[in-house]
Amino acid sequence: MTSTLTVSLDAMGGDGGPDMVIPGVEEALQRHPGVRFLLFGDEVRIAPLLDAHPRARAACEIRHCEVAVAMHDKPSQALRHGRRVSSMWRAIEAVRDGEAAAVVSAGNTGALMAMSKFVLDTMPGISRPAIAAVWPTLRGDSVVLDVGATIGADAEQLVDFAIMGEAMARCRFGIERPTVGLLNIGVEEVKGIEQVKEAGRLLRASKLPIEYVGFVEGDDIGKGKVDVVVTEGFTGNIALKTAEGTARQLTTYLRQAMERSLITRIGFFLARSAFKVLKEKMDPRSRNGGAFLGLNGIVVKSHGGTDALGFASAIDVAIEMATSGLIAKIGADLAAKRALEAFQPAASAAAPNP
Amino acid sequence: MTSTLTVSLDAMGGDGGPDMVIPGVEEALQRHPGVRFLLFGDEVRIAPLLDAHPRARAACEIRHCEVAVAMHDKPSQALRHGRRVSSMWRAIEAVRDGEAAAVVSAGNTGALMAMSKFVLDTMPGISRPAIAAVWPTLRGDSVVLDVGATIGADAEQLVDFAIMGEAMARCRFGIERPTVGLLNIGVEEVKGIEQVKEAGRLLRASKLPIEYVGFVEGDDIGKGKVDVVVTEGFTGNIALKTAEGTARQLTTYLRQAMERSLITRIGFFLARSAFKVLKEKMDPRSRNGGAFLGLNGIVVKSHGGTDALGFASAIDVAIEMATSGLIAKIGADLAAKRALEAFQPAASAAAPNP
Repeated sequence: MTSTLTVSLDAMGGDGGPDMVIPGVEEALQRHPGVRFLLFGDEVRIAPLLDAHPRARAACEIRHCEVAVAMHDKPSQALRHGRRVSSMWRAIEAVRDGEAAAVVSAGNTGALMAMSKFVLDTMPGISRPAIAAVWPTLRGDSVVLDVGATIGADAEQLVDFAIMGEAMARCRFGIERPTVGLLNIGVEEVKGIEQVKEAGRLLRASKLPIEYVGFVEGDDIGKGKVDVVVTEGFTGNIALKTAEGTARQLTTYLRQAMERSLITRIGFFLARSAFKVLKEKMDPRSRNGGAFLGLNGIVVKSHGGTDALGFASAIDVAIEMATSGLIAKIGADLAAKRALEAFQPAASAAAPNP
Repeated sequence: MTSTLTVSLDAMGGDGGPDMVIPGVEEALQRHPGVRFLLFGDEVRIAPLLDAHPRARAACEIRHCEVAVAMHDKPSQALRHGRRVSSMWRAIEAVRDGEAAAVVSAGNTGALMAMSKFVLDTMPGISRPAIAAVWPTLRGDSVVLDVGATIGADAEQLVDFAIMGEAMARCRFGIERPTVGLLNIGVEEVKGIEQVKEAGRLLRASKLPIEYVGFVEGDDIGKGKVDVVVTEGFTGNIALKTAEGTARQLTTYLRQAMERSLITRIGFFLARSAFKVLKEKMDPRSRNGGAFLGLNGIVVKSHGGTDALGFASAIDVAIEMATSGLIAKIGADLAAKRALEAFQPAASAAAPNP
C-alpha cells in the first residue's frame, strides 16, 4: 500500500449513508493507515460524524454535494437529477480526473453502473461492464462474475468476463494461472444454453493463456472447483443471493437447534469459540464489495444494507484493486484478445485445428 | 393411501441401480405398506436383491428388460436405443397403460423427460413440462419450478409453471391459496428479463384464482417468502444446486470448527442432539424427488446419486401426487386458463382494465 493512495467515497450511498460510511472509513484506516479519502456528500451531515471519528477526520476531505441519488431511482432518473451534481457522480469523476485511484459507493447499483459508464467509459471492446464478487469456497475464495450488471450476455461477452475475472483472480489471490469455468446446468458439453456453449467453444479454441476447464454447476461454486466462475448477470445474481439466503437459513436452523435444551445450550457455550470461527467464515460483511470490471477506472459497489465493517471491506477491495494494477492487467489482456482476433480474422471454434 | 396403488420403478436408473432401488422400496414400504411396485430391469440383478429384502419381495413384481439407459446418454441416443425396450421406457408405459399410478426413476434426466413426453404426451396447451422441486425454507416447504427441464421459458410458459406449481403446493402442503412469486433480480417492477416482466404482467392481469405476489429474489427462496417460486430451468437448476452446495459447504465448516479443540469437541458432544435435528433438516435425501409437471401422468425423478433413503423419498412424492389427484387438478386449472383466454381473446396485460 503506498502512502499517497486516495479513495473517493460516495458518502450518501447505502441505507446508512454517512452514519455507516464514516465509521467504515475509521475501520478501514486501521488496516490502511496511509490511505486518504475524498468524501462526497452533505457537509452538514458529514462534519459532525468526522468530529466523532478523529482518525477518519485526519484522513478525509469533504467535498460538499447538494444532491444524493435515491436507492430506488431508476438509472435514467439518477442520470437526469444527479448528473454532475450528485455525490455519486462527483465521486466517480474524482477517479476520472486522477484525484482518486478508486471509488466506493453503497448506493443504487443501476445508477452507479450507469454513471460509471458515462464518466469513466468502458474499456475498448467492452460493451457492458460486469460486477465481480468474491465467493468463499471450501478451497479458498473464488471470483464469480457477472452478479447482476448485465442480463443475457452473449458468448463474446462471457469470454470477456472470463478474461477480466481471470485477471482479478491473479491480482487478488496471487494465483499465477487461475482456473476458469462457465456456469452451466450440466458438465456434459451438450447441455446448456447456446451462448454458454458457444463461449465454451471460444475459450477452448482461444490462444489466450487462460486455464479454461469447462462447465461447472451450481454446487461446484461452493466446492471451489475453479478460481473464476463465469455467468451472465441474471443467473449470477440469483446464484449469489440464493447462497446468501441458504447461509442465513442454516444459521437460523443452527441457532434454533442449539436452544432446544439446557444440555445443548451448555454444549453451545463450550463450543462457542468454534461458532465464532464459523460466524466469521460466513460473515457476508467480510466479502462485501463487488468490483465493476471493464471500466477505465476502479469502481467498487458495497451492499446498500451493510454496516461500517462491511463498508470497510469494500474499501479493502478498492485499495487492493488499485495497488495490484488490475485495470492495467485487464486492459492488456483485452488488447491481447483483440490482437489475436486481428491476427486470425477467420479463427473460430468451428475451424479445424491443424 | 389406497391399498391398491401401484408404482412403477425404473430399477436400472441412478448410480446405484437395483442395489439402491430395492432397499429404497423396502424403506418406502415401512411408510406405505399397501403399495405395490412394478420393477422394470435386469431380473438377474433384481431377483437376488429381492431375496434379501422380503418385505420388498412381497410387494414387487419384476418385469425383465434387457436394455438400460446409460446415465450419460443424450436423450436422442436413449430414444434410439431404449425405445420400447428399456427399463425406463417400459416403466413409463406402465403409467400410460394404467398398470401403475406413477413412475419413479433415478436415471438420466434428459432421457426420462424425452421418453415421458413421448409415452405420456404433454397436457393440452403445455409445450414443455417442468421439473418441480420441494425446497425447505424457514417458513416450511416451498415448490420451486422449473429446476432444469426447460431452458429459457417464455412468459406464457412461466404462467403455466405458476399454474402447475400452485396446484402442486395446494396438494402437497394442503394450503388453500398458495402464494406465487416470479424469481427475478430485484423486486422493483422495472428490473429483470423481458419474459419475466411479461409473465408478471400476465399473472397480475389474470382472472385465474392465483395469489401472485410479485417478484422474489434468490434470498427470498430460503426465507419462504412465497409458497411457489417460478423460474425457467437454467436459473432454477443453478439456484437449486448453488443452495445444495452452500449447505454442504457450511456443514463442512461446522464440522471443521467443532474439531478445533478438546473443549469444542466436548461442546459438540453435549449438543449432539441439536446437530442431529439440524442434520435431518438439511438432509437433501428427505427432499429427493423432482415432479415432472405438465404430462398426462405422474413421473418423479430421483437424484441419480441418492441412496435407499433418498429413493424412498422420491417414492413418497409419487404416492402423494397420485393420491392427491394432482394431475386432475393441474388439468382443470390449465383448462380454466384456456377457457378464460377463449372468453377474452383480446385480454392482455396491456389492455386497460375497465
